[in-house]
Amino acid sequence: MSNPGTLDGVLAPVLTPFTNALTPHVPLFVALARHLMGQGLGLAPFGTTSEGNSLAVDEKVELLDALAEIGLDMGRTMPGTGCCALPDSVALTRHAVNLGCGGVLMLPPFYYKNPSEDGLFAAFAEVIERVGDSRLKVFLYHFPQQSQVPITHGLIERLLAAYPATVAGIKDSSGDFANMESMCRSFPGFRVFSGTERLILPVMRAGGAGCISANANIHGPAMLELWRRWQEPEAEALQKDLEGFRAIMEGMPLIAALKALTARRTGDYGWRRVRPPLVPLPPEAEIELVGRLGKAGIAI
Amino acid sequence: MSNPGTLDGVLAPVLTPFTNALTPHVPLFVALARHLMGQGLGLAPFGTTSEGNSLAVDEKVELLDALAEIGLDMGRTMPGTGCCALPDSVALTRHAVNLGCGGVLMLPPFYYKNPSEDGLFAAFAEVIERVGDSRLKVFLYHFPQQSQVPITHGLIERLLAAYPATVAGIKDSSGDFANMESMCRSFPGFRVFSGTERLILPVMRAGGAGCISANANIHGPAMLELWRRWQEPEAEALQKDLEGFRAIMEGMPLIAALKALTARRTGDYGWRRVRPPLVPLPPEAEIELVGRLGKAGIAI
Repeated sequence: MSNPGTLDGVLAPVLTPFTNALTPHVPLFVALARHLMGQGLGLAPFGTTSEGNSLAVDEKVELLDALAEIGLDMGRTMPGTGCCALPDSVALTRHAVNLGCGGVLMLPPFYYKNPSEDGLFAAFAEVIERVGDSRLKVFLYHFPQQSQVPITHGLIERLLAAYPATVAGIKDSSGDFANMESMCRSFPGFRVFSGTERLILPVMRAGGAGCISANANIHGPAMLELWRRWQEPEAEALQKDLEGFRAIMEGMPLIAALKALTARRTGDYGWRRVRPPLVPLPPEAEIELVGRLGKAGIAI
Repeated sequence: MSNPGTLDGVLAPVLTPFTNALTPHVPLFVALARHLMGQGLGLAPFGTTSEGNSLAVDEKVELLDALAEIGLDMGRTMPGTGCCALPDSVALTRHAVNLGCGGVLMLPPFYYKNPSEDGLFAAFAEVIERVGDSRLKVFLYHFPQQSQVPITHGLIERLLAAYPATVAGIKDSSGDFANMESMCRSFPGFRVFSGTERLILPVMRAGGAGCISANANIHGPAMLELWRRWQEPEAEALQKDLEGFRAIMEGMPLIAALKALTARRTGDYGWRRVRPPLVPLPPEAEIELVGRLGKAGIAI
């Protein structure tokens, strides 16, 4: 990997809190963002974990404005801006650039299945051309299990050839290390983020940029320590340590569980709310989760 | 089936034309809607075939307003209003009700996969409660191949129990006749529309309400004739006749092909445009398609 990027490191896909009316709870959101950035993490709001696709465009604009208003480092913020509808993606991306965001994380349009490579290229190209701003840095979002629309090597190659100064990297949430390694090897300077902390060490060794993982909402400092010390002898042990928290979370509905833990950490009950089609974590599951974390000696 | 519904019959998921800037082309849209309604069809704008999920909320509002402004029968219009984000679904649904739409066709939120039945129930219930209007008639949209989020019998049962005057029926695009038949049998009065003209006769015999199929944009009158005459001796032959057009279209990227045919029918080149991630039909494929239709003696 050549020059380090300002977004390299560990980014948290910031959870989105809701009021009792299921509207975004701006003060709680801002408080979490400040907390995470205070831990040294970058921010990736409006990702999958953020229920980003359950938010309307104007809600995302309001939340992003709130981060800028309290003076957080927007250069260390990579909001999700890829929507199904082109004008939505353009509006959000343009707004993110104008607020000084260091990059945007862009899902492909995800309703129509099996799109052609030409169609996906056009989807990203139209956004890039319409925003038309040299400050724009696009990170592609590869999450085939959820979006059902993979980002292939062929597509990346074409986008890099057409927009070398704009297409900056990828978040790979497939969990497939071979794919991440191959991207690091094939596209020098292209910043590869693992979507799971399980692969921080292998991805850094392969030349990757870092990690953007749901669990960073709760367990970010441990991830960041590994990211900082990946070349030290302790790295293997630090990587192994991350397994404990992850294994406990994996049996849980992830977003609802992270929100329940955030509710406990902050003492704010409202953090437990989710937007449909998600459902809150049942109290029994929350108690089981907290019990397991306690047994494993993991503080939240 | 008890009393007939005002939307029973054949509905066309109206194609959405775009300008050279890829914004919706309102005059062409209105002209197609008028043409289809003039053929006796109902309208189902913003469905899958309409590239409905590639349109922003305000674009859909503008297009729906345009239909109301020229005095089309909104009672025979069932726009797609189900989005990923709750406020978007609420805003669109409320707008449709206020314009007098006879119903809305509602996809479940489709980004998060494997939602629980509780979560899906909440997704529909929140929209219905927030719109809070006794004029609202919801038709559920079951299209598991595209949305990846099926509408199960269990979910329908719960929605009917909670909102018997609002939950009016379903469009089943699964192609699975057994599912349609079972819904007709299990939920008396619930209006079942087949998403394919291949099943008009079987669905009507099972007690269904009609058909909402992409091909109605071009081939609607033949479908409508079968729907009107399904109890007559000619019905089997009419059903068989529908196969010819369908078989020819099935080898094609459907939306782009229907737009190319609409471009030829109207003489307006712009109809060929699609929004990414779709791509226009290549001219070679268009010529092949027209040749095949000609050989089969099908006029467009």
